[in-house]
Amino acid sequence: MIVVMRVDCSQQEIDAILERLRERGLAGHLSPGVERTVIGVVGHTYPELKDMLELLPGVEEVVPISKPYKLSSREFRRENTTIQVGNVTIGNGDLVVIAGPCAVETEEQVLATARAVKAAGACMLRGGAYKPSTSPYQFRGLGEDGLKILETARYETGLPIITEVMAPADVELVCRYADVLQVGARNMQNFMLLDEVGKARKPAMLKRGFANTIQEWLLSAEYILSQGNHQLMLCERGIRTFETFTRNTMDVSAIPLVKRLSHLPVLGDPSHGTGKWYLVAPLAAAAVAAGADGIMVEVHPNPDIALKDGAQSLTFENFQRLVAQVNAVAAATGRKLAIPV
Amino acid sequence: MIVVMRVDCSQQEIDAILERLRERGLAGHLSPGVERTVIGVVGHTYPELKDMLELLPGVEEVVPISKPYKLSSREFRRENTTIQVGNVTIGNGDLVVIAGPCAVETEEQVLATARAVKAAGACMLRGGAYKPSTSPYQFRGLGEDGLKILETARYETGLPIITEVMAPADVELVCRYADVLQVGARNMQNFMLLDEVGKARKPAMLKRGFANTIQEWLLSAEYILSQGNHQLMLCERGIRTFETFTRNTMDVSAIPLVKRLSHLPVLGDPSHGTGKWYLVAPLAAAAVAAGADGIMVEVHPNPDIALKDGAQSLTFENFQRLVAQVNAVAAATGRKLAIPV
Amino acid sequence: MIVVMRVDCSQQEIDAILERLRERGLAGHLSPGVERTVIGVVGHTYPELKDMLELLPGVEEVVPISKPYKLSSREFRRENTTIQVGNVTIGNGDLVVIAGPCAVETEEQVLATARAVKAAGACMLRGGAYKPSTSPYQFRGLGEDGLKILETARYETGLPIITEVMAPADVELVCRYADVLQVGARNMQNFMLLDEVGKARKPAMLKRGFANTIQEWLLSAEYILSQGNHQLMLCERGIRTFETFTRNTMDVSAIPLVKRLSHLPVLGDPSHGTGKWYLVAPLAAAAVAAGADGIMVEVHPNPDIALKDGAQSLTFENFQRLVAQVNAVAAATGRKLAIPV
Amino acid sequence: MIVVMRVDCSQQEIDAILERLRERGLAGHLSPGVERTVIGVVGHTYPELKDMLELLPGVEEVVPISKPYKLSSREFRRENTTIQVGNVTIGNGDLVVIAGPCAVETEEQVLATARAVKAAGACMLRGGAYKPSTSPYQFRGLGEDGLKILETARYETGLPIITEVMAPADVELVCRYADVLQVGARNMQNFMLLDEVGKARKPAMLKRGFANTIQEWLLSAEYILSQGNHQLMLCERGIRTFETFTRNTMDVSAIPLVKRLSHLPVLGDPSHGTGKWYLVAPLAAAAVAAGADGIMVEVHPNPDIALKDGAQSLTFENFQRLVAQVNAVAAATGRKLAIPV
Repeated sequence: MIVVMRVDCSQQEIDAILERLRERGLAGHLSPGVERTVIGVVGHTYPELKDMLELLPGVEEVVPISKPYKLSSREFRRENTTIQVGNVTIGNGDLVVIAGPCAVETEEQVLATARAVKAAGACMLRGGAYKPSTSPYQFRGLGEDGLKILETARYETGLPIITEVMAPADVELVCRYADVLQVGARNMQNFMLLDEVGKARKPAMLKRGFANTIQEWLLSAEYILSQGNHQLMLCERGIRTFETFTRNTMDVSAIPLVKRLSHLPVLGDPSHGTGKWYLVAPLAAAAVAAGADGIMVEVHPNPDIALKDGAQSLTFENFQRLVAQVNAVAAATGRKLAIPV
Repeated sequence: MIVVMRVDCSQQEIDAILERLRERGLAGHLSPGVERTVIGVVGHTYPELKDMLELLPGVEEVVPISKPYKLSSREFRRENTTIQVGNVTIGNGDLVVIAGPCAVETEEQVLATARAVKAAGACMLRGGAYKPSTSPYQFRGLGEDGLKILETARYETGLPIITEVMAPADVELVCRYADVLQVGARNMQNFMLLDEVGKARKPAMLKRGFANTIQEWLLSAEYILSQGNHQLMLCERGIRTFETFTRNTMDVSAIPLVKRLSHLPVLGDPSHGTGKWYLVAPLAAAAVAAGADGIMVEVHPNPDIALKDGAQSLTFENFQRLVAQVNAVAAATGRKLAIPV
Repeated sequence: MIVVMRVDCSQQEIDAILERLRERGLAGHLSPGVERTVIGVVGHTYPELKDMLELLPGVEEVVPISKPYKLSSREFRRENTTIQVGNVTIGNGDLVVIAGPCAVETEEQVLATARAVKAAGACMLRGGAYKPSTSPYQFRGLGEDGLKILETARYETGLPIITEVMAPADVELVCRYADVLQVGARNMQNFMLLDEVGKARKPAMLKRGFANTIQEWLLSAEYILSQGNHQLMLCERGIRTFETFTRNTMDVSAIPLVKRLSHLPVLGDPSHGTGKWYLVAPLAAAAVAAGADGIMVEVHPNPDIALKDGAQSLTFENFQRLVAQVNAVAAATGRKLAIPV
Repeated sequence: MIVVMRVDCSQQEIDAILERLRERGLAGHLSPGVERTVIGVVGHTYPELKDMLELLPGVEEVVPISKPYKLSSREFRRENTTIQVGNVTIGNGDLVVIAGPCAVETEEQVLATARAVKAAGACMLRGGAYKPSTSPYQFRGLGEDGLKILETARYETGLPIITEVMAPADVELVCRYADVLQVGARNMQNFMLLDEVGKARKPAMLKRGFANTIQEWLLSAEYILSQGNHQLMLCERGIRTFETFTRNTMDVSAIPLVKRLSHLPVLGDPSHGTGKWYLVAPLAAAAVAAGADGIMVEVHPNPDIALKDGAQSLTFENFQRLVAQVNAVAAATGRKLAIPV
């Protein structure tokens, strides 16, 4: 942490800061001669120190110089984390394609989709039994009945299941059915949920909040990791910007950036990232070209009767084309599809 | 809901849409002759219909024309909602000043603050026992011990207590101590929490999410109202924008706008809205000038040793000045401070 | 400027940086012992240095510690700048009300408006002869004919004129008619225009770009000041955010913040700030409560036939009410309306 | 245009609107029976009509249903526009790689870069002689001397030149040297500049403003097209969001989206889009995978001594790797590099 003093600060003000640091077992190292006097804080700092120091007279600003996240950083762990889900390995260089309906509606819908996406090259099935819904009057998911349908689909196809959990109290239940727990964008800073997912011994996927910075995302990952759950992957799914033509603006640059900052696998979700079915394939290809470890895509037998997010769901046929496309892009960079035996 | 057709759509495509509407018990009313063919949907529409219709061939876009929120709208209830909390009435035109520390740290800190803010003119005490914290390594609150300290402060000063609840499972516990349940910005779309707060029979305050639109805010209010809890007030606390000098950009215009769209009381929180103590008083005055039913302000005996949000907390002396200032602005518009007997 | 090194940087990398600084006539001051090695740059730094240093091996980030703007800062000039325009003084504590139509349409329209706003308490007339227009098919202003109409209005009412200039080549012409040159939001970073306005010897108003930070705003002010034009005032008019209900989000906090960082007068424009006539008065009051030196408001004899921005224009009657309201708020803080003799 | 009435509007209010439309030679078509009364406007509407109608009593909102841009839309022209610049064709499916320094500094720097990027596969040279600079104290370009250096580089290498023009009065001069006129992001809404570029008979590139919507971008294109210059290409270069880790957030989805809405070629600029050299190659690959007609990349012999934007510039070696990468991605989708003879 570095304390930048005002141009017109007094010696007394500098001394007061050094004294404050001493009281807390820290030392201050003065750099005179630069444009302004600067005090380097020597010792173990903590985030609240910034607020405290900024209130002291004579201080212009306080600049943190250590990253607030530790366990999720590349500095903590140099090699890529890989996660094993059934036969599928995530993070080893192969391209993981996860697909399925936004929401679980009926057994028929889920089974048909599961078979179709498996045939097309997907290696994991997504589907929501608990759905966050902006309005209380919209469909909110089938709950445990939905989880049971997913279980049937896994039994029928062998595809592992990823599904969202929305409340701390539901983590245990969802763990009984899911292979991967998904924390959705709206819950990225639901810290009590993060604690519970961190205590679970299940692989988890943490989606980026639509208004959260990359640093906040890694700090939320830190919640899960610090509770002992190291089987964690991240998923970029678009952020909220001034542009309203697309549902969100998919931050493709977050993919290579987070892979540089962190050892965790990073996937891309072009369905939520764009909100328009006709942009899903180009953005899936873009995510793969930018280095994503996988993509997660919404597929529905009949998008025009989907109870949720039909506008961004692909038909089976369009999904098949998308897989061919991302496969070609992956191959162009020396990678291949992860397909379970 | 209005279906806008593409300029080059065919008669067949129009017929297909009318047929789809009929299947769902709806009718389509054609407006030919405008720049494009437009189909008005007659009957009871629902949000998912938009997605469905937008996928049909020949459709350019689908425009919803009814507001998705009902119970929170002025059209539903013309007169202002007022909420009674002890001796304090919120929403009746008087200016409600809520103040207290960001986080409950010690009994001494809370009692000193409670006495000081009461003496200065506050009519309710705020203080967090459960604190959302971006990093797992920061202070996260004292939990039930914190609630007990707040209870003591109410006993000592008579000030009603507002405090945050973060998990559905905690609502019952927090209800035992609090006079008003606060749903924080990060939980504005924690729908399971909203359900529980809606089932509680306690006044509640719903803060605006830092990346949520006004419509989403009113839809979250709808969750609480539709579960039967009508004692609901709203609080604008700043939104996330590209400007980083302030912690958030306080959307002062949301205050008169939401009071026009809704019958619910609206407060302003200039502490989180700006993140800088020296901007709190000017923005508190601005919120009052714009018509806020009240303000919520962070006050701490020693902001520079606060465990949380010291940089935006006022000293007792600065808070006293702020109350004088907002009182003058309120008086200029024919209003007065709400001060409990 | 401070160079923060990576945790794992080598002594060689540190030496290379010190060498680079020496080559440029600068010195590096090492602060070992803080979490990371930190090098304070001693000597006269410049913005491009940051880019250069960040590319060197072993560097984590480079933190500028001096403000890039000088002439516009409070550190450069402690006392408030005041600007004299005819009988009106801007920046001396009095509240300046500027009003008039968005665009100059006809002499009749402008004269009627000028008389009405003068009678209601305005001390300056606004009106656009050159209009930035998102679409080439919209009204773009009357050009010099419009300037002549404004001249007539000044002759008839004595009100000084503020009007926008959009191209460097037009500055001379507009100077012949205007009392204050306005640089609009879309031109805040039209640097060649800023140069010309800086060379003019006319008071100028620089509006904040709708997507520009406060620091960028002050740097654009620096362009004008550094060319020798010190009669400069600023105007906050709303920024672009994810919220689409209002045309922009008026950043009321920018008003007290910029008055703290700079000595220049700061006004607020609630018409563009909100885009809705019914929000103009509450946000005008808010801007004044937050300390604005003045407000600029759009008024039209018949907003519903205005060629431009009718939705945010006030009728004469509503403007009269607004003046009464801001007058009361100003009085509450010991200020009064600036009314020319 | 569609007028949506308030739920509680009166017959008189509806009649008044129909009367207003008649006065303007328009007709209103009523759709009763939908949730609200809706009036379709029949006849030739114009943008200002929206403002006017929204002010009338009883109106909830007015929804435009025709796109405000015409000449730039796919509806106006179905087939892709192709632009010929020397031997290079832009928009015909081949991948155009444009590269060069951010700013022209010296003849040596430009010539070395031109030769290196040509050898690596670029088919056009970029370089700024007029540089928009946030601060007046930063490097602002060499002006005409810079243009002359670019001319020499074209003579030496045969590469056509693209360079920025910043003021309407400079268009003629820049046309004498450049093969393609570039309108930069900060000038996307400099309408007087757009007019002049539209009158020029030179290919032009219009970069997206960092805070402009796709619709505004196409409307700015409309300025240029409507003046008769049809040789226009677009370039996505990142938008401003709350994320500050990257300089901008590159909106990769804008590439396929604009190609769907418009017939104009669309390129991507990952250098400005990210601001970090190590993200340039992944985002270039992403842009190509998403369907960009080309990419524009900053390259410098020694990024660490560049006068401008060194942090986002590639070395010759890194650029060579990037070309190999985008070439492979292009090949994966059946495309090839555009390389001039």
